[in-house]
Amino acid sequence: MTRTIVESASKTAIIGFDQPFCVIGERINPTGRKKLARELEAGDFSTVMSDALAQVAAGATILDINAGVVYNSNPNPNETEPPLMQKVIQMVQNLVDIPLCIDSSVPGALEAGLEVCKGRPLLNSVTGEEDKLELILPLVKKYNVPVVAISNDDTGISEDPDVRFAVAKKIVERAADFGIPAHDIVVDPLVMPIGAMATAGLQVFELVRRLRMELGVNTTCGASNISFGLPNRNGVNAAFLPMAMASGMTSAIMNPMHSLEMDAIRAANLLTNNDPHGGVWIKANRVPTPEGEGRERGGRRRRRG
Amino acid sequence: MTRTIVESASKTAIIGFDQPFCVIGERINPTGRKKLARELEAGDFSTVMSDALAQVAAGATILDINAGVVYNSNPNPNETEPPLMQKVIQMVQNLVDIPLCIDSSVPGALEAGLEVCKGRPLLNSVTGEEDKLELILPLVKKYNVPVVAISNDDTGISEDPDVRFAVAKKIVERAADFGIPAHDIVVDPLVMPIGAMATAGLQVFELVRRLRMELGVNTTCGASNISFGLPNRNGVNAAFLPMAMASGMTSAIMNPMHSLEMDAIRAANLLTNNDPHGGVWIKANRVPTPEGEGRERGGRRRRRG
Repeated sequence: MTRTIVESASKTAIIGFDQPFCVIGERINPTGRKKLARELEAGDFSTVMSDALAQVAAGATILDINAGVVYNSNPNPNETEPPLMQKVIQMVQNLVDIPLCIDSSVPGALEAGLEVCKGRPLLNSVTGEEDKLELILPLVKKYNVPVVAISNDDTGISEDPDVRFAVAKKIVERAADFGIPAHDIVVDPLVMPIGAMATAGLQVFELVRRLRMELGVNTTCGASNISFGLPNRNGVNAAFLPMAMASGMTSAIMNPMHSLEMDAIRAANLLTNNDPHGGVWIKANRVPTPEGEGRERGGRRRRRG
Repeated sequence: MTRTIVESASKTAIIGFDQPFCVIGERINPTGRKKLARELEAGDFSTVMSDALAQVAAGATILDINAGVVYNSNPNPNETEPPLMQKVIQMVQNLVDIPLCIDSSVPGALEAGLEVCKGRPLLNSVTGEEDKLELILPLVKKYNVPVVAISNDDTGISEDPDVRFAVAKKIVERAADFGIPAHDIVVDPLVMPIGAMATAGLQVFELVRRLRMELGVNTTCGASNISFGLPNRNGVNAAFLPMAMASGMTSAIMNPMHSLEMDAIRAANLLTNNDPHGGVWIKANRVPTPEGEGRERGGRRRRRG
């Protein structure tokens, strides 16, 4: 049974077929968040801190940390991102105790993050591009950490799911050459917007199934990509996530502040037998009453113990 | 490609792998609805009529018609149910134009329904019980209608999904002996409550996949059974339906008045490429504005044509 172990100093998160779905909180990322980017350049970590606390409170299993700010004062991320990554990681791991995911397209920022991150973080990411494989896999081996493998290579992102599967297979094989086991690779098969490609959903469901059955790997994705450009994106995401889970997906990089999606994931955990005795579902769906006694959503009263 | 054709006098509903999910509205059923039962015994069809209209407005594809009232004045349903079934069907098909599903455990009521129902109704149901096979399959053949096949037999309902699959296979084979093709059989693999059996969801997903891959049949279920006894049943159902659809389920007998479940089905239709250009999703998620112009849920303004 494939299990990917991700750890902070004190907590372990397991990504696996027999585990509750792993929610990787995506909020600490300045991409497309101008205010956060300017704050970080100015050395202000207040949004990072509130986002960390809020995501943990909302039920995130792991927090993604991306420090990809392009500084106004220095446009070279190879110089600015590594120290910022270290600062953000240190700030967050002093504040919350769940494991982290070090997220950068700058290899120097990944290594800088690995130097200061406690426990066994998830590295995000390697691709099938030759230079990335040669730079990132030795880091994965050296620090003995699991890694997200994104299914694109030097030819770009293929619209053909068979090509994306082949890229994932190549990464898993190359990692094996470095002595990295398949259970430390979490494949992102790449989710296209359904508004741009009508078969995007079907592609992901089939790819996840093949990745699980044929390569035995855990999988993840940027879940909200699927609904890009559509109205009521939360509604699309809240159906997509259970469908991906029924197909075998074991984690997603997503916004845990969206309750419709989190409700859907909790229900899908229950339906895949990853919520023993429905404990999490029942607790999450109890409505507090003025008397201080729990009442379950849907009208049933909680039995007294 | 498996397609089950169900028709009213003027409309066709297609159940199939390449079709939007077929929602069979369950409301016209006096089981557990005492008020409706008493109304029907008294010859009052007002609730039947309002339920028919409301379910069609909510997006039902087919309406299930069950007239299983145990009369206070006559406890023999073999006498009372056939004429009541005819009355209810006539009432409903004069009011709405979508196809009907004739639902009874009384064979005489099924035949009475077939006598008056226009078009090509779905018959609900046959089981693997010997006496049912011998009584119902000739009716299916005689009236050339599709039929729901429930996966229990003379030994009852098995908790073993392999046994339930074997029962479904037996029914499909027995039907073939009568000259009834597999595309006219819609198998109900039987959904257990997840609160009573933790693997109930996984069982259904696996069974639906096998029924589709190995027998090539459409499938249905009483969807809300899955959440029996749990809090926030709509939340469980709204994850279960997309997961069942990702596994290949093509219809469900359910309450179309529950918007959370209907939203989930519309999103899952989009994600299985059964909503061309997202037309249904986009239309359903437009929010009317005071100016009378459509605005899409999620903040995007609709483009003018």
